[in-house]
Amino acid sequence: MEKLLDRINQTGDIKKIPPEQYNALAAEIREFLIDHVSVTGGHLASNLGTVELTMGLHLALDLPRDRIIWDVGHQSYTHKLLTGRKAGFDTLRQYHGMSGFPKRSESDCDSFDTGHASNSISAGLGLVRARDLQGGTQTIVSVIGDGALTGGLAYEGLNNASQLKTNFIIVLNDNNRSISENVGGMHQYLNEMRSSNAYLDFREKVYQSLKESPRAMERVRRAKNLVKSLFVPGMLFENLGITYLGPIDGHDVLAVKKAIQDARNIRKAVIVHVCTKKGHGYLPAEKHPARFHGTVPFEIENGLPKSGSRVGYTDVFSTVMIKMAQRDPKVVAITAAMADGVGLKRFRNIYPDRFFDVGIAEEHAVTFAAGLAQGGMKPVVAVYSTFLQRAFDEIAEDVCMQDLPVVFAIDRAGLVGADGETHQGIYDYSYLSAIPNMVICAPKNKWGVSDLIKFALSYGHPIAIRYPRGAAWDGYPELRTKVELGKSELVEEGSDVLLFAAGSMVETAVSVRNLLLPRGISCTVVNARFIRPFDTEMLTEQLPKHRLLVTMEENVKSGGFGEHVEAWVLENFPGYPVLPIAIPDQFVEQGNADLLKKEVGIDAQTVAGRVENALQKEPE
Amino acid sequence: MEKLLDRINQTGDIKKIPPEQYNALAAEIREFLIDHVSVTGGHLASNLGTVELTMGLHLALDLPRDRIIWDVGHQSYTHKLLTGRKAGFDTLRQYHGMSGFPKRSESDCDSFDTGHASNSISAGLGLVRARDLQGGTQTIVSVIGDGALTGGLAYEGLNNASQLKTNFIIVLNDNNRSISENVGGMHQYLNEMRSSNAYLDFREKVYQSLKESPRAMERVRRAKNLVKSLFVPGMLFENLGITYLGPIDGHDVLAVKKAIQDARNIRKAVIVHVCTKKGHGYLPAEKHPARFHGTVPFEIENGLPKSGSRVGYTDVFSTVMIKMAQRDPKVVAITAAMADGVGLKRFRNIYPDRFFDVGIAEEHAVTFAAGLAQGGMKPVVAVYSTFLQRAFDEIAEDVCMQDLPVVFAIDRAGLVGADGETHQGIYDYSYLSAIPNMVICAPKNKWGVSDLIKFALSYGHPIAIRYPRGAAWDGYPELRTKVELGKSELVEEGSDVLLFAAGSMVETAVSVRNLLLPRGISCTVVNARFIRPFDTEMLTEQLPKHRLLVTMEENVKSGGFGEHVEAWVLENFPGYPVLPIAIPDQFVEQGNADLLKKEVGIDAQTVAGRVENALQKEPE
Repeated sequence: MEKLLDRINQTGDIKKIPPEQYNALAAEIREFLIDHVSVTGGHLASNLGTVELTMGLHLALDLPRDRIIWDVGHQSYTHKLLTGRKAGFDTLRQYHGMSGFPKRSESDCDSFDTGHASNSISAGLGLVRARDLQGGTQTIVSVIGDGALTGGLAYEGLNNASQLKTNFIIVLNDNNRSISENVGGMHQYLNEMRSSNAYLDFREKVYQSLKESPRAMERVRRAKNLVKSLFVPGMLFENLGITYLGPIDGHDVLAVKKAIQDARNIRKAVIVHVCTKKGHGYLPAEKHPARFHGTVPFEIENGLPKSGSRVGYTDVFSTVMIKMAQRDPKVVAITAAMADGVGLKRFRNIYPDRFFDVGIAEEHAVTFAAGLAQGGMKPVVAVYSTFLQRAFDEIAEDVCMQDLPVVFAIDRAGLVGADGETHQGIYDYSYLSAIPNMVICAPKNKWGVSDLIKFALSYGHPIAIRYPRGAAWDGYPELRTKVELGKSELVEEGSDVLLFAAGSMVETAVSVRNLLLPRGISCTVVNARFIRPFDTEMLTEQLPKHRLLVTMEENVKSGGFGEHVEAWVLENFPGYPVLPIAIPDQFVEQGNADLLKKEVGIDAQTVAGRVENALQKEPE
Repeated sequence: MEKLLDRINQTGDIKKIPPEQYNALAAEIREFLIDHVSVTGGHLASNLGTVELTMGLHLALDLPRDRIIWDVGHQSYTHKLLTGRKAGFDTLRQYHGMSGFPKRSESDCDSFDTGHASNSISAGLGLVRARDLQGGTQTIVSVIGDGALTGGLAYEGLNNASQLKTNFIIVLNDNNRSISENVGGMHQYLNEMRSSNAYLDFREKVYQSLKESPRAMERVRRAKNLVKSLFVPGMLFENLGITYLGPIDGHDVLAVKKAIQDARNIRKAVIVHVCTKKGHGYLPAEKHPARFHGTVPFEIENGLPKSGSRVGYTDVFSTVMIKMAQRDPKVVAITAAMADGVGLKRFRNIYPDRFFDVGIAEEHAVTFAAGLAQGGMKPVVAVYSTFLQRAFDEIAEDVCMQDLPVVFAIDRAGLVGADGETHQGIYDYSYLSAIPNMVICAPKNKWGVSDLIKFALSYGHPIAIRYPRGAAWDGYPELRTKVELGKSELVEEGSDVLLFAAGSMVETAVSVRNLLLPRGISCTVVNARFIRPFDTEMLTEQLPKHRLLVTMEENVKSGGFGEHVEAWVLENFPGYPVLPIAIPDQFVEQGNADLLKKEVGIDAQTVAGRVENALQKEPE
């Protein structure tokens, strides 16, 4: 039997499907997404929740003339399907394959490359102002989740959108969740509105009552502006100057289509409040939306992951945090909508009073931690590298300038793989190094996470510990030298080359050593452990014993570990040869992390080759 | 006659003043502030506006046991006066003098060092949670202006504060202004509330009407939660889960005191909405609150500045922007509550449709600019260096990753002087260098601003132009070589030392050259012009002709211009001596910029000495 989806091959094809078949098409899209994501992995729950919403948008709009900006972009799969990218799902999130996020380079229907949350209103408002200045008439729609609405940038966008006197549609995709459960006052507010009947009932009741008393009605009429803002749901938005439409059933294609068509006629910024269910139509995802937010390949029948995962750095962090909390009642943990991802779920369950999920609000997370520290606690802020960069100013001004004892546990640092360029955690050494008082360290293996967290909690000043995504290296379990500020750790001794490796690159350095040994090159491997301040005493002692220094890091070169070491060597050992191994200064696209390492030249084979070359240039 | 202020010598002394003398004390405080700031310069308008508010707080609270967090902190002068720091006003904002912002190191009554806007709610919430976890009972008050409420961080704080079940007081100091006029929906909303009579009237009217119809009243009672949220002013905050008290006359000491006392009894986060007038009690400041936000020394009689100011970089920027806008209708300008400060007032007047003041919302400013650029415009984001760091993530993800043509005009870069450590613009070379696709340049003199802005607007990719606060150098007016990406400019030729200087340091380099010439050392001076990418071709040609390379920058060393050059030299001219001149990796306190330059060792005398020393170490 021909599938409806077979008739969807390019942008606009959905308009040829008769309305009575919308539900059938939605079902096919869901089946397609589940089939493909179960093989490739990817964001599932958010995409299952937005099938009808996307269909409604495509039916109401004229793409690519009109523009949709997807906040975060992890809900854009149906949009990709409806814009001629069906075949791309075979290579979803893979090396040189289709991105899991909107990409202007993939389609003229993608208007803004997203990845981080809460920016779609601001970006959309920019497109609106550009349209108006150029006399354009296209419709511009920003789609933002209720989770992303906890981010301050979204509020800044709303606050500025209120001044508009032309149309701008903001679709609030309210699924009642961030990645973890949603938090905060805005969430509570939306929750109340979702049960829209209470509001509509009340509004009706007041109107009826007033009708009974013409005098009262007249009085109220005189205060008409106020009445308007009092008697509509969504008055929080109305109070901010944004027109509110809704709530609307986001799994009803025609209702969405109509709401968008209505919204188009309003010469103001308008919020269309659409209620959806994350994971809709696939039971395991409905039950476990956090696990199916971003999933590995899984068995469709039961939703279980296809491969058991090895112990990751996150797991080690998870365990040590509970131990530390047991020992010291001052230890508290903070995360930004990532309790699962950063490994704080158990902590939350055991120490609910000492756990704070602040929503998608990294800036608040950091300043809040500064307040906790100033109040006598020992806060650990656990966040992904790529998201911590949102709080650069707060790390500098609120934590480091006041020299407060905040510990930053930076997960997903380095190349992250399938999420691609918007999520690579390859800048933190650089931007954190710009901030006075900041100490940066990185573990070589899984035991290192534990040792460094313990050290950090006793350090009493700002400190960041950075570790990569995925399985934790289990090499050198016996090597656990005492952690001392700024001191490195000798891993292997050699005589020709000094491999000075940061964090995850210690494992690579050991591989490089093993590759070079048969080629007659003997390498010392040193675990830098501290990236800032790095161990100059060790260098002073070891450099004269070797012929070449190699710095190794999973960070961009600019402003990273290597450049700092190079500057020091130039000033203290003029003429000493250094080979810096780092990620070139470029955005790195998605793909398996091992492939990416090869592409950017930080894998063991490539490094070994470069070391060999460098030695040939040096006099024996 | 004895002054009341003579009786205010330490924390708590205000409580000994009889209430009938509060107004007289307020008047004395105003006089004191005007007298002192007219001599030292400083923030005036904000402090004149908060005299009674601060008195009310001090009367209601028990300091230092209770805590006040001042958002930004530029309104803390009365607080300093009331906590035993009267004498400090003689050295206000001066080198080794009293800070213009709260400083924990100055007084146990200062609870959090602030300087950047919008963080006080988050920091206060941290102190509240720390108090509760430790069983404390002290009162914690965050004071935030309506201007700071346009920043997303403030909203993140509010959104999280809503969950509190213990007391936390947020004083909304509503003076109807940012530094420039206020903007956005929140502003409109507060405006409506400020004319509180309308609200209270309406509330009364509706109640009266309902009373006439008992049936209606009954119906409404049944929906009591909703009624509550509908019939109180401040419902936007109530909707977010924050209790609202107000509005209150912020120039009535007893009213403020009582409101704080009332607020203390609420076991939730509570906003006390206090209306004040910026500049209150000093006519020139009331009339020109933006000019008196931060003022230079002035004549008390008329408010005019004591010294005429030379043409600054800001003025040049101001002029060139208008020229560029005349030539190209695509040029638009964006600022974050700083139209005056960054020199866009004239632009706003001439091109109101192409000017966007987004409020204190740097993140939105940047993403909004990305949207404008993606929509075909040529946006220029003009912002101070210290505030641009708030948008690191947006610069990376929304502008650079998409390679969009956004121009960043970074004012107040380098050492800023009296505002001190929270405002130093000495990190931008470092953090911007971490971002792929970002080009960074800096003018050597006033004509350079104009040349670089023109270049930037034609460049078509992300680019940042950085220039310092204050008077623009007018050296070398005839030297205006054509701007080419990554190309430097030869300023003076010499034979011994190559001074490779960035931006403001070109002037210093010329001075160094003049100092060294009589000592028999001949310097070449090169204006780097491009910090990233810097001119490697010039280096390749010039290094062999010199004995020493000196990099010079007004930025921290870590990750700055010098380290990048050092790394390149080490890799390409191994053994070549480099002397990096930069600001050491530390926070730099307030003071006259020339004194500070000496302190951190980047003044001409110090540099000349270091160059001489370095040469002695090198073989001739």
